[in-house]
Amino acid sequence: MLNLAIIGTSWITKSFVDAALSTKEYKLVAVYSRSLATASQFAEEYKLGKDACYTSIDEMCKDAKVQVVYIASPNSLHFEQAKQVLSHGKHAIVEKPCCSNTLEFIQLERIAQQSYKETGAMCIEAFRHIQEKNFKVLKDSLPKLGKIYMSLLPFASFSSRYTDILEGRLAAPVFSADFSGGCLLDTGVYPISFAIRLWGKPKSQQYFPYMIPQTGTDGGGTILLVYDWGIANIVTSKIFTSKATVEIYGEKGTLRANAITDLDSIEFVGNAKGTQAEQLAGPKESFNLAEEATEFARIIRDNDIQAAADLWQVSSDVMDVMTDLRKQNGIVFAAER
Amino acid sequence: MLNLAIIGTSWITKSFVDAALSTKEYKLVAVYSRSLATASQFAEEYKLGKDACYTSIDEMCKDAKVQVVYIASPNSLHFEQAKQVLSHGKHAIVEKPCCSNTLEFIQLERIAQQSYKETGAMCIEAFRHIQEKNFKVLKDSLPKLGKIYMSLLPFASFSSRYTDILEGRLAAPVFSADFSGGCLLDTGVYPISFAIRLWGKPKSQQYFPYMIPQTGTDGGGTILLVYDWGIANIVTSKIFTSKATVEIYGEKGTLRANAITDLDSIEFVGNAKGTQAEQLAGPKESFNLAEEATEFARIIRDNDIQAAADLWQVSSDVMDVMTDLRKQNGIVFAAER
Repeated sequence: MLNLAIIGTSWITKSFVDAALSTKEYKLVAVYSRSLATASQFAEEYKLGKDACYTSIDEMCKDAKVQVVYIASPNSLHFEQAKQVLSHGKHAIVEKPCCSNTLEFIQLERIAQQSYKETGAMCIEAFRHIQEKNFKVLKDSLPKLGKIYMSLLPFASFSSRYTDILEGRLAAPVFSADFSGGCLLDTGVYPISFAIRLWGKPKSQQYFPYMIPQTGTDGGGTILLVYDWGIANIVTSKIFTSKATVEIYGEKGTLRANAITDLDSIEFVGNAKGTQAEQLAGPKESFNLAEEATEFARIIRDNDIQAAADLWQVSSDVMDVMTDLRKQNGIVFAAER
Repeated sequence: MLNLAIIGTSWITKSFVDAALSTKEYKLVAVYSRSLATASQFAEEYKLGKDACYTSIDEMCKDAKVQVVYIASPNSLHFEQAKQVLSHGKHAIVEKPCCSNTLEFIQLERIAQQSYKETGAMCIEAFRHIQEKNFKVLKDSLPKLGKIYMSLLPFASFSSRYTDILEGRLAAPVFSADFSGGCLLDTGVYPISFAIRLWGKPKSQQYFPYMIPQTGTDGGGTILLVYDWGIANIVTSKIFTSKATVEIYGEKGTLRANAITDLDSIEFVGNAKGTQAEQLAGPKESFNLAEEATEFARIIRDNDIQAAADLWQVSSDVMDVMTDLRKQNGIVFAAER
């Protein structure tokens, strides 16, 4: 059983805590928020008292009970908070993106290596979808395709926060350059990490975004990841919705999945006319984030540094790709000005 | 009633003839094939005698009864045959692509202008899908989107002729550089003309094809058409199949259609959560090509040179785009060597 502390009290934190508790691998012991009232409110829901509430990350990390800290604050804060947690010798599970850019990532990597050497504390970026059982089914099914020609990876969903912007209200952190927001780091990170977990780092990449004039951040668009075998064609957005299916095309047929996250349908259809679709997906977990929570607990418990390093490689490649895509398009965050 | 002659006797010719006859606007009067036996066999199906069969295009065009000639031979022959038909003062309905490249197109355009001036004969490229009633519904529905951000236009279907290539047999004309084959001119031409009919000529374009080593032609891939407003993201192929829906994304919602051709479902879904989809498509014609046959007959009958010129502009833009996309990728046809 791992003693869990949390930074951030939004719906995603609640989802992670519920999923983590459902695995019986974690016990919630501490809650951080800038506001004590917010921390208390969250803590109460899990029957924790005031003594479990913190308004200082350092104080929370000094609590000897705390073993692992889940970080789900606005994007721009992940990097500093992860460093802070690791400096106390506590494991950090950091929501994606773990950093704003490659420069921050290199620093975080150095600190993570040091903290692991000195205290055994690990840093894990929370790519939940690549821990789904059905993602692993998809990955294991790639050989059915033979030679791969191309892939279409749509992941685009309208965010009601965009309405705020269109109607002249203040942009929420997910859209704000002040908080390292925008589609790429918030939503594009899913299909990019999906592709990188399947095929590694692309040779090059291109992004054709719609730039939101009010925020200077990207609303979404087409991303092409260029591999030796062909293109991973990504459609991603927070300002419009796609219902197009995920497809991977090969010499022997097409693998088709319902989506990039929350996979519950995967079929392989051979190219010959009239071929019956082969259904591959197993039942989906009831808690979306339970699979990652289970795997991260296992990595920490088993001190499985190889698995952690494999995940960290995905983090590193994703951050390089996203940093380059922003550079191409002049997307600059407050953290970089 | 227009007296129709045909060049080519494949399934597409039969489809066009059946559709044309169903409109009551055409009467089939002559059939050309290199082989008299093939011409006779086709003619017999339509209760025409040997006197309606030709093995010389010039002879057929000298037949005073013939008013309009539908050309559906292998791609590489369209250009010369269209010139030949026009030189006899007969209207030409030419299957797409009407030429192999922009150079041929410029010549054909000059000859078409001359023949129209001297004899009234018109040259029309047979983009059937942009004549579908539901395509026009889609076009008229674009204002629902407000500002357009992006579009996803998948049109990809595995051709059993590719199996011939994979198994070491001779490539069919649709895949052969000798016949100006390959995905771009045979299949990509549909989504490209779809986009150009909706939004005009793109500012620039990029194609990331899988090149078939056995033929030196393209099997399919991602095409990006770059517009001022954003990207038309095309997935096209003859070596794999996509079932992803056609989507056009805008500030107010998404227009979603079943496909690039044979549209029978179009919905508009507003961005606000829980918005009911608005169904826009009318019933589909029973003959896929009847709508184009009707419109081409109208253009010829009414001598509607403006409508013909509008269509010709699509032909011109499509040919420029395809020629550039081939150039980028070093796809060279026998006609160009």
